[in-house]
Amino acid sequence: MARTIGSNGARTAEAIRQAGVKLIYKHGYEAMSLRQLAAEVGLQSGSLYKYFENKQNLLFDIVRDHMEDLLGKAEADLEGITDPLARLKTFSAFHLRYHMTRMAHVFIANMEIRSLEDEHRAVVVALRRRYEGLLEEILRQGAQEGVFQVSEPKVATYAIISMLTGICMWYRPGGRLSQDELVDIYTGLVVDGATGPGPATAARAKPLEAAAAQPRDSGARAKPRVARPKTARA
Amino acid sequence: MARTIGSNGARTAEAIRQAGVKLIYKHGYEAMSLRQLAAEVGLQSGSLYKYFENKQNLLFDIVRDHMEDLLGKAEADLEGITDPLARLKTFSAFHLRYHMTRMAHVFIANMEIRSLEDEHRAVVVALRRRYEGLLEEILRQGAQEGVFQVSEPKVATYAIISMLTGICMWYRPGGRLSQDELVDIYTGLVVDGATGPGPATAARAKPLEAAAAQPRDSGARAKPRVARPKTARA
Repeated sequence: MARTIGSNGARTAEAIRQAGVKLIYKHGYEAMSLRQLAAEVGLQSGSLYKYFENKQNLLFDIVRDHMEDLLGKAEADLEGITDPLARLKTFSAFHLRYHMTRMAHVFIANMEIRSLEDEHRAVVVALRRRYEGLLEEILRQGAQEGVFQVSEPKVATYAIISMLTGICMWYRPGGRLSQDELVDIYTGLVVDGATGPGPATAARAKPLEAAAAQPRDSGARAKPRVARPKTARA
Repeated sequence: MARTIGSNGARTAEAIRQAGVKLIYKHGYEAMSLRQLAAEVGLQSGSLYKYFENKQNLLFDIVRDHMEDLLGKAEADLEGITDPLARLKTFSAFHLRYHMTRMAHVFIANMEIRSLEDEHRAVVVALRRRYEGLLEEILRQGAQEGVFQVSEPKVATYAIISMLTGICMWYRPGGRLSQDELVDIYTGLVVDGATGPGPATAARAKPLEAAAAQPRDSGARAKPRVARPKTARA
């Protein structure tokens, strides 16, 4: 955590944080040395401690700030929207836009959870749960109102967040599709997944596919609806 | 790449590979030392070179093997299946089962692409493209046959693979839901996303939602269908 420092100090702390993001993204947390970090911001290694007690606290600072920012902005975007379908679209669009522009932060927040000390990891996991809870609640509300067919809101939450977050693995500005078009395509997939089987599936129902056209809100199912791959895997 | 070695040597090479997966997963590729690796398999550091020329080649070996195995098994599972809906379900179920049991490999294959030298990275990226191509072709075929409503098969491919791969970030054996149930839930989301808007969306179409009920196979769209978040983000 940053110590009490003036405005110049705050700028330096921010520069260290940004350099940390860059170096951890490139080399991994454990491989990043404080010497590299100091060189990146033009400081002596020994001066870093004025801004961050140690490397672990810098990582915690980066990841916690990212999660708090993500959570706060999502809550602000959803404020005042009550319809579950509109809330789902807003959440999806927010998550996509946020992740398209913060690839390195997202990479670190997901991949270096392993490098956080237990106490720090608990804080970050709790923030992540609150963020996931926003989407889970939207899915539950929509299912209750009969708009969504989601039998397992928690699993669907993980699935949707993975799908949306994945955009930062390949999106680069200036590509063939604009941010708006990508938000459109991904949100379409999310909405269609949440609202249940489309007419095409229902119309084509054959023995294998018949089960897929069933409503997805029945809590327990005796058999899997999907053919198992031919090779058994434990 | 492993040098020509006997069957004992092959076992040792495999033990080194497994130790490499474990250590890279835990510490990151750059942070893993050859000394750690040798200690993990009970060798002297100097003996490692008999099995792998260097650390880079070990990483390449691990990631390439993973991608070749993934691709080969997916092709085997899809063989003989021609219906696009059945192919989509088979691909989805295969990908999920494979990823539920190989978290460390998947983590490394996705996260340490950054650490591969250019020549090695090109090989891995080509294998990944071939794997993604399987799903993209299924989506294109289904769209042509009118079963799926997918305007951008490449984007939908990335979205679906991210969603399915994400299962290895949280799945642990012995949880409340079985592998079959999870395959069922995720595959339902994939199929519903690919087949287009469900009846619930269409029935509730209001000004904001109306656009979402449009078929998704129109190539170009002038306007995004989704409301932008209130805060502009670059």
